[in-house]
Amino acid sequence: MSQDSDKHELKIGICGLGTVGGGTFNLLRSKHAELTRRVGMNLNITHVATRNPADSLKNSGVKVSTDVFAVANDPGVDLVVELIGGFEPALELVLKAIENGKHVVTANKALIAVHGNEIFAAARKKGVVVAYESAVAGGIPIIKALREGLAANSIQWLAGIINGTSNYILTEMGENNRDFPDVLKEAQAKGYAEADPTFDIEGIDAAHKLAILAANAFGTGLDFDRVYTEGISHITTSDIAYAEELGYRIKHLGISRITEQGIELRVHPTLISDQTLIANVNGVMNAVVVKGDSSGSTLYYGAGAGAEATASSVVADVIDIARSNRESCQQALIPPLAFDKLQGEMRILDIEEIESGYYLRIPAKDEVGVMAGISQVLTDYGINIEAVIQKEPGYDESEPNIVPVVILTAPTVEKNMNVAIKAIEEMSEVAGKVTRIRVEHFDGENE
Amino acid sequence: MSQDSDKHELKIGICGLGTVGGGTFNLLRSKHAELTRRVGMNLNITHVATRNPADSLKNSGVKVSTDVFAVANDPGVDLVVELIGGFEPALELVLKAIENGKHVVTANKALIAVHGNEIFAAARKKGVVVAYESAVAGGIPIIKALREGLAANSIQWLAGIINGTSNYILTEMGENNRDFPDVLKEAQAKGYAEADPTFDIEGIDAAHKLAILAANAFGTGLDFDRVYTEGISHITTSDIAYAEELGYRIKHLGISRITEQGIELRVHPTLISDQTLIANVNGVMNAVVVKGDSSGSTLYYGAGAGAEATASSVVADVIDIARSNRESCQQALIPPLAFDKLQGEMRILDIEEIESGYYLRIPAKDEVGVMAGISQVLTDYGINIEAVIQKEPGYDESEPNIVPVVILTAPTVEKNMNVAIKAIEEMSEVAGKVTRIRVEHFDGENE
Repeated sequence: MSQDSDKHELKIGICGLGTVGGGTFNLLRSKHAELTRRVGMNLNITHVATRNPADSLKNSGVKVSTDVFAVANDPGVDLVVELIGGFEPALELVLKAIENGKHVVTANKALIAVHGNEIFAAARKKGVVVAYESAVAGGIPIIKALREGLAANSIQWLAGIINGTSNYILTEMGENNRDFPDVLKEAQAKGYAEADPTFDIEGIDAAHKLAILAANAFGTGLDFDRVYTEGISHITTSDIAYAEELGYRIKHLGISRITEQGIELRVHPTLISDQTLIANVNGVMNAVVVKGDSSGSTLYYGAGAGAEATASSVVADVIDIARSNRESCQQALIPPLAFDKLQGEMRILDIEEIESGYYLRIPAKDEVGVMAGISQVLTDYGINIEAVIQKEPGYDESEPNIVPVVILTAPTVEKNMNVAIKAIEEMSEVAGKVTRIRVEHFDGENE
Repeated sequence: MSQDSDKHELKIGICGLGTVGGGTFNLLRSKHAELTRRVGMNLNITHVATRNPADSLKNSGVKVSTDVFAVANDPGVDLVVELIGGFEPALELVLKAIENGKHVVTANKALIAVHGNEIFAAARKKGVVVAYESAVAGGIPIIKALREGLAANSIQWLAGIINGTSNYILTEMGENNRDFPDVLKEAQAKGYAEADPTFDIEGIDAAHKLAILAANAFGTGLDFDRVYTEGISHITTSDIAYAEELGYRIKHLGISRITEQGIELRVHPTLISDQTLIANVNGVMNAVVVKGDSSGSTLYYGAGAGAEATASSVVADVIDIARSNRESCQQALIPPLAFDKLQGEMRILDIEEIESGYYLRIPAKDEVGVMAGISQVLTDYGINIEAVIQKEPGYDESEPNIVPVVILTAPTVEKNMNVAIKAIEEMSEVAGKVTRIRVEHFDGENE
């Protein structure tokens, strides 16, 4: 296949030259020779669209437009790289590129999570590839692992730290005993968090990524609307300290699991044993554990964001398409969501249907019998207590009259836990809302 | 591509029905429907060769031979899965299958490491695929990650725990303070180690895998003969305890790094910070860290052996070939060693040329000035001391007159360290051989 490789060329159009777009442009240009050596064909940028073209582009030999649709409609472009982000005009752009028979590479997780079903159907009709490795976990080739490397497996569950901002904040809170607002401010100053951090800290970004991971794991379509999503803004440094005392870390996880009843899709803070590898993934780093029925547990770790790491996944997608885009072979080889034929409709479980262990922090009054009362309520609902921490009154300086009672429970159905918590909050010995964080015990040994 | 998927079929011949072969047979048969849904084509076993055919095979509808070449010569086989192991007749079998225009999937790490260059050249000439994901790190899709997922990167280095037996032994020695021979015996009883454990504990198995990983990382051919190989049989529980006191774990690593002088290829016990993820990979598990210039450090973790995990990688290779083997597209798309055009001759560094930090355990006599003398020798050779542990005489009950002096040095060239060690061993205050273990500081943060 290499004999005539010099005659071959893949003509690339890039839409958007922001952080990731600029990184992609630079990577493709600076490594042109090495990439040709890898692929056996030239990866040439022929056209870019950017709102404010830099002067340096003028002499680059690349066509420059301000309108992204000029790239999607350019007959001199085989593959459109969509890096403008957001829904509009990104969706229209991607559909136009597909309509024109061009392959598409995108890093746009929101677009894929929300409009992926429509996009993949259009791509299939046209026989073109829509690749999106960079949309999940930046520089980690997790989509490839899920839909190719682990393709012989029935995936049982996956769990990932898939939002670097949240992981950075939780790590800093734990390691340096700093409050959430304080760390958030620093993360914003360092560029780890946006000016409006809602997407990251409320779990929406992670929910986009989880929807994509789960669709690939289980061969369902994308079900972003059904992801249960809970952020980290209610986690306190004392929760982190209590968890540590019990041998756990608090991580913001995206979890998806197939059960007899249906598929779990949930994003929330989670206590996990400090003996697991994923509990030791700190700072802005990402990691995903995937449990296959044959492979057992596998873990993938790396940078979840950043111009270079994300660009490296964008270009890996470009290389995949180039490798399968020779003249004799111009079709989509790898199904976009891992399965050539998707599952029929699968039931997504409501969060009340899932089973989990729970960490409960209960603001009790300093009264005789409070612990006995709480234990009785849990027993009434058939919930076993696995561990308890009760500190002396005044332990928390900000609430000197409160005795914090921390309880770790055995797994129970969430609906049952909800009524138990309501009953505890109604006790006269309890002074306020119960904090509840789910606990996961992964069934591998060392994840 | 799916409209006529039912008409498509990949006809698979399996040579060898041992542990992995049996696992592969069962996986392909039991998951036939799910795999068809993934691939959009039927993966059918049409012929197996095994020395002692089980009765159950008779009614399986599969042709059964005792001669593996019957499979390689069968026109009713598109793809030969070689799971007989060893060099002969495996090499001849693989070359015959290629000659007959059949794709090959193999788990045979020794065969690929030693004869890969010849095999890949033959496959290229014939336009068929030789896939070997299962040859390295069992169920972890590390070959795919290296040559596809990270294809946009210039790989800078990689380091892996790629022999589960050695990792199990070192983990047990450290966690339970048990001696090497004792743990080895248990590993043999549990089936983690062979009756003749040489391949595993002397690092040969790891060297096979490292040669394959490095070839994929750097686009060189395979250079198994040039891998520096050192096993774990000289590691003592006191080395593990001293390392722990200094904040390190001892892991048996395969390391390959590209430097201005050439490529490092080495397998040996290594001290790594206990704060890294890879230091916390325990028992029989495997993990590989890959540092790309764009992606940064990424880590891949999972089961390195076992029938099911290995079979899952064998079948993933089968699926890759099936996906790219449709009528309109019958060529090898992914170069077998990551690069379409391999590097020209690259220099492999001799172990004396590498730079490393060192852990030294020196059996000193209980005499005045011994520490000063040792320090002076190291200073004479320009070697900086980073940490020292000196215990009181009698600390090691088996050698009551010896004062073990443990030193951690800054990085120096190995050749320089070798002469310094020789000088130390010649000191009258030193009672015997110096134990030397290399120390690695990976330049990522959390590997």
